[in-house]
Amino acid sequence: MTFDPAGIAALDARDPLRGFRDEFQLREGLIYLDGNSLGARPRATAARIAAAVTEEWGEGLIKSWLDAGWSTAPLRIGDKIASLIGARPGEVIAADSTSVNIFKALAAAISLRPDRTVILSESTNFPTDVYMMQGIEAFSGGRIKAVRADPEAVLDRLDADVAVLLLTQVHYKSGLVRDMAEVTRRAQQAGALVVWDLSHSAGAMEVDLNGARADFAVGCGYKYLNGGPGAPAFLFVAERNQAAMPVLSGWFGHASPFAFEEDYRPAGGISRFQCGTPPVLGLAALECGIDLLLRADIREMREKSLRLSQLFIERMELRCAEFGFEPVFPADPKLRGSQVAYAHPHGYEIVQALKERDVIGDFRAPDILRFGLAPLYLRHADIVDAVERLHEVCLSRAWDKPEYRLRAAVT
Amino acid sequence: MTFDPAGIAALDARDPLRGFRDEFQLREGLIYLDGNSLGARPRATAARIAAAVTEEWGEGLIKSWLDAGWSTAPLRIGDKIASLIGARPGEVIAADSTSVNIFKALAAAISLRPDRTVILSESTNFPTDVYMMQGIEAFSGGRIKAVRADPEAVLDRLDADVAVLLLTQVHYKSGLVRDMAEVTRRAQQAGALVVWDLSHSAGAMEVDLNGARADFAVGCGYKYLNGGPGAPAFLFVAERNQAAMPVLSGWFGHASPFAFEEDYRPAGGISRFQCGTPPVLGLAALECGIDLLLRADIREMREKSLRLSQLFIERMELRCAEFGFEPVFPADPKLRGSQVAYAHPHGYEIVQALKERDVIGDFRAPDILRFGLAPLYLRHADIVDAVERLHEVCLSRAWDKPEYRLRAAVT
Repeated sequence: MTFDPAGIAALDARDPLRGFRDEFQLREGLIYLDGNSLGARPRATAARIAAAVTEEWGEGLIKSWLDAGWSTAPLRIGDKIASLIGARPGEVIAADSTSVNIFKALAAAISLRPDRTVILSESTNFPTDVYMMQGIEAFSGGRIKAVRADPEAVLDRLDADVAVLLLTQVHYKSGLVRDMAEVTRRAQQAGALVVWDLSHSAGAMEVDLNGARADFAVGCGYKYLNGGPGAPAFLFVAERNQAAMPVLSGWFGHASPFAFEEDYRPAGGISRFQCGTPPVLGLAALECGIDLLLRADIREMREKSLRLSQLFIERMELRCAEFGFEPVFPADPKLRGSQVAYAHPHGYEIVQALKERDVIGDFRAPDILRFGLAPLYLRHADIVDAVERLHEVCLSRAWDKPEYRLRAAVT
Repeated sequence: MTFDPAGIAALDARDPLRGFRDEFQLREGLIYLDGNSLGARPRATAARIAAAVTEEWGEGLIKSWLDAGWSTAPLRIGDKIASLIGARPGEVIAADSTSVNIFKALAAAISLRPDRTVILSESTNFPTDVYMMQGIEAFSGGRIKAVRADPEAVLDRLDADVAVLLLTQVHYKSGLVRDMAEVTRRAQQAGALVVWDLSHSAGAMEVDLNGARADFAVGCGYKYLNGGPGAPAFLFVAERNQAAMPVLSGWFGHASPFAFEEDYRPAGGISRFQCGTPPVLGLAALECGIDLLLRADIREMREKSLRLSQLFIERMELRCAEFGFEPVFPADPKLRGSQVAYAHPHGYEIVQALKERDVIGDFRAPDILRFGLAPLYLRHADIVDAVERLHEVCLSRAWDKPEYRLRAAVT
């Protein structure tokens, strides 16, 4: 890759996604490498939320459930998300948190495999995925077991007891991309269903759920979908699995919520996987983020993201090789998500020192520096600058500063 | 009560809550009797949400989790709600939907009564309460039974099998107020725990959870708390029950969410009943509604609400007696929530015709007209006007209009 300033400028000048940065509120000078934790704010969101608050809620009041499309928002936004992840209309809803949707997906999968007793995952999966499994185990009184295997050995653990395999497509620390089609095939061959967590892939790279014949999937609204802090999450249920009993059987999943029937009667299709009243303001912000994303070409996003990560890695080798950063990302670029990560004994202090230099990265305990590379709003020049500032931090041995140590002890 | 115009004007003039109406966005002329379905919009919410979107999210980005108090919002707002419902700080969180919180409360209660097998409720409870019970029954594979009894007989059904009794303090149709202390005492005497649904009482009347020695409670953020459409709900867990295992054991309920530990280790106190990432924008709107409510005297609100319902009832007797409205509210004013309801064979059509006359009420299938009387923003004169417009609707026999019939068929 071309590293001279002119070459970097040329890469940015011919970037087909270069127009998108201006659609986000991002202060000049700031290099935001944390879009995989909280996506940046689309400019359009402010006016959309203001309209939802003052016109739809304030003026329209209760009538807006129909007139402003509030009641159909979970399905409407779900359909938009479907187009980003290789799902069909009617297979995705936007609702609840990722954690709650993991529960719904696991519980539905278990109901489809009543003779099996194991939820299987990998030991280093994102914590909330594992925690939700453990909650189900506790609630089942021992009937269901939450089992974790080593990441490399998880497919070998598939046996006739496994009802459902829960895996994340792009690992939150290493960024390793799992082969969704192959893993799904092997799990289904063993008679299990698969729940994919797309939190670190949806909106950053091509995802093809139906191409992989996936059963269930969940994902996060506030990372690459740029839906805002704590945005509603999403749930995919393949059409063939939609007859499953939703355990969180709330009134918005009823066939006729406003008939106020005494018995639960699940809605057809994906609707039954709604539970309570939809979070209208959060959904409005989420929809802005997704509408923006839908204007971009996801293949171009993936190509740019891989360019950005390759550039980051090569710059690190050139500028920071002597400072003890240990790569925590796959050697093969095709297996890398939209991020790079390094282990470093002073990871926490370095992330703090970078913040003071206007580079926002992420620290993940115990020692991981994680840099998210959202292709919609980052420039190639930002990557070069970020590594330069990291180089400065290392030269100044910022980790010796007592104030960073103190904060590390309480985080 | 004084019904002449001067008397009504005098009631409004000396209303200690009269200043609150201007704090809400309410068009002059509109009579909004649906605050028990969706509370009106506090004016302060627009600026607060705009700041959350552009300053906290847009400018502060990921740092706002600490700097803008996002991560502590569920507990901070929970403590504010606690002061409205007779709970202590640390006993309430604002999180998820009412339905999801019902699940959490029921699951926690069941875990505290492992030898019992029944969740008991009344047959006419709000549908989502019953539906959530039924989801637990289905998921338990028959170990747990969701049992409903007639409203009058529900306490007689308490036996050694009942793990938990789920009741709503103010009935969503009739507005009947349950005696929380007495019901709780009887349930606990039978060895059961009680989950109270406060959706139609919190923020409208005095609620004294600890005075009644309540075990668990849930409630809605978008009715009398004026938190906005689909606002986050709340969950109360009495301190003595907080060691219960939260089944929805997501990462925000972990003792150390950002340590990314492999095993779930529940946080102490109410925090463990959080699940996924908090819905920041929804919480910001909710907090505005609650902050406004906290400036009012809840006893004055209750007194005014009872004055409004008495006025409504007396005006109905005077003006609409011959039109076949059947009262569906308790004869004893003390047992009335902040609403009045009538059954009428043309209930649906009448509610539609009232809308055209700028009176927003609510229809609840099969034949109930429900009028919510939010004391913060309604005036006594509004009640008189509303009944006058209802009188006009009846005189014109609006239910004969074909357009209302047509819409009734599809709702």
